[in-house]
Amino acid sequence: MSVKAYGAQAADKPLEPLDITRRAPGPHDVQIEIAFCGVCHSDLHTARAEWAGTLFPCVPGHEIVGRVSAVGAHVKGMQPGDLVGVGCMVDSCQHCDDCEAGLENYCDGMVGTYNGPTADAPGHTLGGYSQRIVVHERFVLRIRHPEQQLAAVAPLLCAGITTYSPLRHWQAGPGKKVGIVGIGGLGHMGIKLARAMGAHVVAFTTSESKRKDAESLGAHEVVVSRDPAAMAAQAKSLDLIVNTVAAPHDLDAYLTLLKRDGTMVLVGAPASPHPSPQVFKLIMKRRALAGSMIGGIPETQEMLDFCAQHGIVADIEMIRADEINAAYERMLKGDVKYRFVIDNSTLA
Amino acid sequence: MSVKAYGAQAADKPLEPLDITRRAPGPHDVQIEIAFCGVCHSDLHTARAEWAGTLFPCVPGHEIVGRVSAVGAHVKGMQPGDLVGVGCMVDSCQHCDDCEAGLENYCDGMVGTYNGPTADAPGHTLGGYSQRIVVHERFVLRIRHPEQQLAAVAPLLCAGITTYSPLRHWQAGPGKKVGIVGIGGLGHMGIKLARAMGAHVVAFTTSESKRKDAESLGAHEVVVSRDPAAMAAQAKSLDLIVNTVAAPHDLDAYLTLLKRDGTMVLVGAPASPHPSPQVFKLIMKRRALAGSMIGGIPETQEMLDFCAQHGIVADIEMIRADEINAAYERMLKGDVKYRFVIDNSTLA
Ligand SMILES: [Zn+2]
Ligand SMILES: [Zn+2]
Ligand SMILES: [Zn+2]
Ligand SMILES: [Zn+2]
Repeated sequence: MSVKAYGAQAADKPLEPLDITRRAPGPHDVQIEIAFCGVCHSDLHTARAEWAGTLFPCVPGHEIVGRVSAVGAHVKGMQPGDLVGVGCMVDSCQHCDDCEAGLENYCDGMVGTYNGPTADAPGHTLGGYSQRIVVHERFVLRIRHPEQQLAAVAPLLCAGITTYSPLRHWQAGPGKKVGIVGIGGLGHMGIKLARAMGAHVVAFTTSESKRKDAESLGAHEVVVSRDPAAMAAQAKSLDLIVNTVAAPHDLDAYLTLLKRDGTMVLVGAPASPHPSPQVFKLIMKRRALAGSMIGGIPETQEMLDFCAQHGIVADIEMIRADEINAAYERMLKGDVKYRFVIDNSTLA
Repeated sequence: MSVKAYGAQAADKPLEPLDITRRAPGPHDVQIEIAFCGVCHSDLHTARAEWAGTLFPCVPGHEIVGRVSAVGAHVKGMQPGDLVGVGCMVDSCQHCDDCEAGLENYCDGMVGTYNGPTADAPGHTLGGYSQRIVVHERFVLRIRHPEQQLAAVAPLLCAGITTYSPLRHWQAGPGKKVGIVGIGGLGHMGIKLARAMGAHVVAFTTSESKRKDAESLGAHEVVVSRDPAAMAAQAKSLDLIVNTVAAPHDLDAYLTLLKRDGTMVLVGAPASPHPSPQVFKLIMKRRALAGSMIGGIPETQEMLDFCAQHGIVADIEMIRADEINAAYERMLKGDVKYRFVIDNSTLA
């Protein structure tokens, strides 16, 4: 089944209209007509082969929302017309310890929504910058938000779960002081989610100009990280920091802000290493520096339901598919509040 | 009260006999005649002013065991003749959250057993390379080992608790696979303790020559870290690694060995930084890199009781006080199995 898509034919080429094929739904598959797809930094890095291993043609997109158009014979609990989402994965081994624990995101056999191995043509997965996708039911999420919010739900599938998962795992909630470093696609979700979980939220930004926005998003306090006095005032006070900044930066400045037994979780991997963190800062207060990658499927459903219940969506700027190359350039400059979302009807 | 001690008058001078004074015991003080004192790497670093802030004269020593010779009027549960120990601290603020939690080791007002602030002459604390010490009862530990093991108990007060605390905090025990990196003063205790806790213990050493020793100490497996195949065979298999090596080294080689949600705990701070760990290794399996510093007083008592119950002591080489300078040189070469202990009767 041929469908319209937008993708890159080579690392140095802009994205352009493509025709791709989708498999007919197997017994456990769900076929989804994609309504909207969020635009993640990973899309850009992959399309431009800035990380190793991009396979072409490359159709990015892993913040997918749409409506079920067909289901396989064995699919339970989903039917045509349902609003659903697909995030960063479309398959995994489904039997290892990680999969058994509902943490398919840590499975060694996890298959990304794009650029992952598949038996389907062309031999690697093609993502959400397309009209339709066919996905194993295990990796399809139910969306319980009102339909008019659908576009703004899309970024929850990557930016939302990537921040929700560490906030939950490290127990953000009432009585906890939680820092969110960086106010972009991930960070703006982190602020909203930590606030809704009941934590006291401190947003860290390099730019005074983002103060008002961070407050509007829900931050109780905003700290400009270039202000040494403001940073010092937070010393040894935070239970948890979710650091969304992938660019190499001084981690010690934030480790110092953790209380005893506090953890800073990195959710972005820098292209070149951060300066080496001081071991002394970890030892002195039994602090930890950890990493977290997206989240498992049950937790993603939990996050979507939590967001529906609390009226949380992403702040988005809608674009046409043919605006994607310009959107990438603006995203590189941080010129978006806070996520571009493609209106997939413009692919037609 | 003047007592004999051994210490350094300056960073570039060898340790030599000194006369120091000890305060008369106050109402909450315990006066201890020191029988033995273990020799820790920190002693050497401090005496030679390799870390900032050494105050002279410097009398090192924080692995102290001996017998109570007097107690203050308000001291409860200790009396002259009791076998007791003193570790790395002799005071703290005693009222902060850390102190309330029995984690005086993380208190900002923690006073080290040597080189810490005190009202006593000469204005900084003087440690266990001395005949006697006077310590607030809160920081005096009960020793329940048989008296003939007393010398070998001394290193438990630093090397023992420094490895016991992270093993307990990160829940080493049955069903857990625990790595101990480095087989020195700390590492040899880590192996014994992790084994006694019921964990499956993997010792990591740079030297094939230490294999037999590590097995004797209780390691189920010994991995020579320079053997890539042996390291690869441990990939993604360890729940916890306690890394006792303070010299800068490649942390990624060990992070890779952790399972999902595994933690590597550093218990030594390098003089120059480790190469920066790869964030990707943390993110991929939600791993953590943490630090831990000694342990709190209740936990130190728990550790001593655990060791008494399991017949655990350190492997030691006894020295006379006047052999300390030579012992430092041998310690720098790793030429000790596994801890020097001073016979403090040789100070007389
Ligand atoms: Zn993404
Ligand atoms: Zn799996
Ligand atoms: Zn020590
Ligand atoms: Zn305190």
